Amino acid sequence: MATLPTVAIVGATGAVGREMLAVLEQRHFPHADLRLFASERSAGASVRYRGEPRTIQPLTERSFDRIDIALFSAGSAVSRHFAPLAVRAGATVIDNSSAFRMDDGVPLVVPEVNAAAMARLANPRRPGIIANPNCSTIILLVPLSPLRVAFGIERIVVSTYQAASGAGAKGMAELQGQTRAVLSGAAPTPEVFHEPCAFNLFSHNTPVDPATGLNVEERKMIDETRKIWNDPLVRISPTCIRVPVLRAHSESINVTFQRPATLDQVRQCLAAAPGVRLVDDRAANLFPTPLKASGEDDVLVGRLRPDPSSAPVPRTSTESRAAPGSAPHNRSAPCLSFDLFISGDQLRKGAALNAVQIAELLRE
Amino acid sequence: MATLPTVAIVGATGAVGREMLAVLEQRHFPHADLRLFASERSAGASVRYRGEPRTIQPLTERSFDRIDIALFSAGSAVSRHFAPLAVRAGATVIDNSSAFRMDDGVPLVVPEVNAAAMARLANPRRPGIIANPNCSTIILLVPLSPLRVAFGIERIVVSTYQAASGAGAKGMAELQGQTRAVLSGAAPTPEVFHEPCAFNLFSHNTPVDPATGLNVEERKMIDETRKIWNDPLVRISPTCIRVPVLRAHSESINVTFQRPATLDQVRQCLAAAPGVRLVDDRAANLFPTPLKASGEDDVLVGRLRPDPSSAPVPRTSTESRAAPGSAPHNRSAPCLSFDLFISGDQLRKGAALNAVQIAELLRE
Repeated sequence: MATLPTVAIVGATGAVGREMLAVLEQRHFPHADLRLFASERSAGASVRYRGEPRTIQPLTERSFDRIDIALFSAGSAVSRHFAPLAVRAGATVIDNSSAFRMDDGVPLVVPEVNAAAMARLANPRRPGIIANPNCSTIILLVPLSPLRVAFGIERIVVSTYQAASGAGAKGMAELQGQTRAVLSGAAPTPEVFHEPCAFNLFSHNTPVDPATGLNVEERKMIDETRKIWNDPLVRISPTCIRVPVLRAHSESINVTFQRPATLDQVRQCLAAAPGVRLVDDRAANLFPTPLKASGEDDVLVGRLRPDPSSAPVPRTSTESRAAPGSAPHNRSAPCLSFDLFISGDQLRKGAALNAVQIAELLRE
Repeated sequence: MATLPTVAIVGATGAVGREMLAVLEQRHFPHADLRLFASERSAGASVRYRGEPRTIQPLTERSFDRIDIALFSAGSAVSRHFAPLAVRAGATVIDNSSAFRMDDGVPLVVPEVNAAAMARLANPRRPGIIANPNCSTIILLVPLSPLRVAFGIERIVVSTYQAASGAGAKGMAELQGQTRAVLSGAAPTPEVFHEPCAFNLFSHNTPVDPATGLNVEERKMIDETRKIWNDPLVRISPTCIRVPVLRAHSESINVTFQRPATLDQVRQCLAAAPGVRLVDDRAANLFPTPLKASGEDDVLVGRLRPDPSSAPVPRTSTESRAAPGSAPHNRSAPCLSFDLFISGDQLRKGAALNAVQIAELLRE
C-alpha cells in the first residue's frame, strides 16, 4: 500500500462503527476514499466526516470493489459472510467480531502487545483477515503485557465491571431508557439484556458452558490471552459482570508474577508502558473510573498495591487492635502478587481504536 | 431478660435504622416498649410501627433509662459517646458502627457464623457491647463460613460491587439525584461521594493507607474476618468498589480451600447453609443480582465453578480452536479453588437484620 488506501467501515452506524469514524478523523488516518456501509435498514443516513457529509450505503456482496482496508464491526454473522468476500476482492479485513479470532493463521492483535504476530505472516501487508480481540481482553492485556515481559505472569484472577456499550448502541439505550423508567416509578422492561440493567448488575449476558460454568465472555478472555501471548499455559480465572455504566469497562485484577517485584518496580514498568496511564493517587483517593476513561485512548491503571494475601502473615493475636493493622508490605519489599484496578474505554481501546491502530500497522 | 425487653433504636431515621424497625416488625420481635431516637434535627418525625404512629425522640445522655437492648446505627462518633452511657444505664448495646468492632472483649458477631462468641462472655445475657460487622464482611462470611468448616480456607481474593446504601440514605439520594441530572443533560455534583456516582463506579470512598495501599473498607474485611473466624492467619485480598446500585452489595470471590472439594460437594454445603440461597441456573443464565437480593434476608450465591486457573492446564497448542475450549474440570474432579458470585441486601443482612438476629440470640 504505497499509495493511500481506500478504507471501508462495515457497520458504520453502530456504536463501534461511529467510534471508528471518530478515531480515523482524530488520528488523521491517511486514506483515499472512505466508504461507509450498514444494513439496508440504516442505509441512506448521513454522517459528517472531516467536515463533509457522507451517506451510509447498504452492504452488498459487491461492496468491496477496490477497497484496501475494511474495518468490520457488524457482528459475527455479517463478518462470517462478508469478510471472505472482501478478502477475495483484495481487501485486508480488520474484524472486530469474534468470528475468526481463534482461527489458525488469523493474527489476533493488540498493537502495543503483539504487533509481531502480523510480521510473522507470509505477506504482512496483505494478511487477509486480522482479528481485533474482545474488549475485556484488550483492556486487560495493555497493562499486564509489559508486566509479563518484566516479571513473568503465573496467574491472573480478574473480575470485570463491564459497560452497557459492550452490547452496542442498543445496550446503552436500554440502560438509559430503563433508568429513566425506574426513576419515574415504572418497571424496567429488559430487551437487550436478560436482566434489568438500571441500578443493577448481573453476570455477563453470554451463554454459560454447562461443563465449565464459564460464560462465553470469560472463555474469550482465557483463550484470546493465551493466543495473544502465545502462552497456552497461562492461568486465568475471569468473572465477567455487566454494570450500569455507559461506555468504559473496569477490571479488578490480582496478578501473580513468576519473579518477585517491588511496588516501585511495578509502578515504573507501568509508567513507561505504551497505552497505559497511571491514575493512582492514594492521598486524594483518586483512581481509575469508567467516567475518567470514557473518550480516552489510554487504559487507566491504579489501586496498585502488593496483594496482602500473598505475603507471610504476621503471627499476632486476632483480638488486638494493632495486630491486623500492621502492614506486611512496604515499598521496598519484593512480592510475587499484586492487586490493581483498571478502566478503559470499551468503544475506543476496547474496539475502534485498537482496530485503527492495526490499520496503522499495515501502513508502516 | 425473662420478661420482655424494652428496645431502643438509636439513629431510627437513617437508612439502617428504618430497616431495623421493619425487621423488628416483620420478625415479630418480642419486646415491651420500643423507643426511637435520632438527632435533634430528625426528632419529632413520626413513623408507623405495628400499625401505630411513633414519634422520634431526640437522643440525650438520659435516653437509656430502663432500656434493655439498644440498637445503634448513627455512626461511630455517636456510638463512642452514647454506647458506654447506655451500658452504664444497664442496656446491652448492639452497635452497627465500626467504633468497637476490633476491641478486646467486644464480640463481633454474625449469628450464623460465630454465635458462640457471645456464649464465651462472662455473662452472655449482659455482654455490654456487641458489634455488628461491616456489611461487606457479613455478606462474605455467610457463604464462606460453612465452606471453611467443610474444606478449610487458605486464601480469598474478593472484589466487591457495593451499593450506594453503604453511605446511608444520603448516598442513595445522591445516586438517584445525580442520575436524574445526567439523564437531563446536567453535570453531576458529587457531595456524599468524592467521585460522580451516576453511571460510574469508583474505588471505595474510605481513606487509603499510604503504607499498604488498602482502603479502610478493605482493611475491615481483613481484620473483621480474622476476628470472627478467630484465625489471624487467613489470607484475604479484597478490592472494594462502589457501583451505581441502590441497596445490595455483590462480591466476586475466588476462594482456595485447604482440602480439595468437588463442585457437587461445594454446592451441597452451600445448599444446606443457613442464610444462603443458591441462585445458580447456568442454562437460563440466572445468577445473583443486587435487585434479586434487595429486601431479602438470604445472601444469594451463584456462578459456582471450579477456578480454571487452579487446575493443571492441558498442554495443547494455542492456535487450535479445540484446545483452549477443552474443560480442565468436571463435576466429579476434586479441586482446591472455586469462583462464586454473591449478592446480599446491604441494609438487611449487611446491617439491620444481622443486628436484630444478635438481639434474638440475647433472648435465647
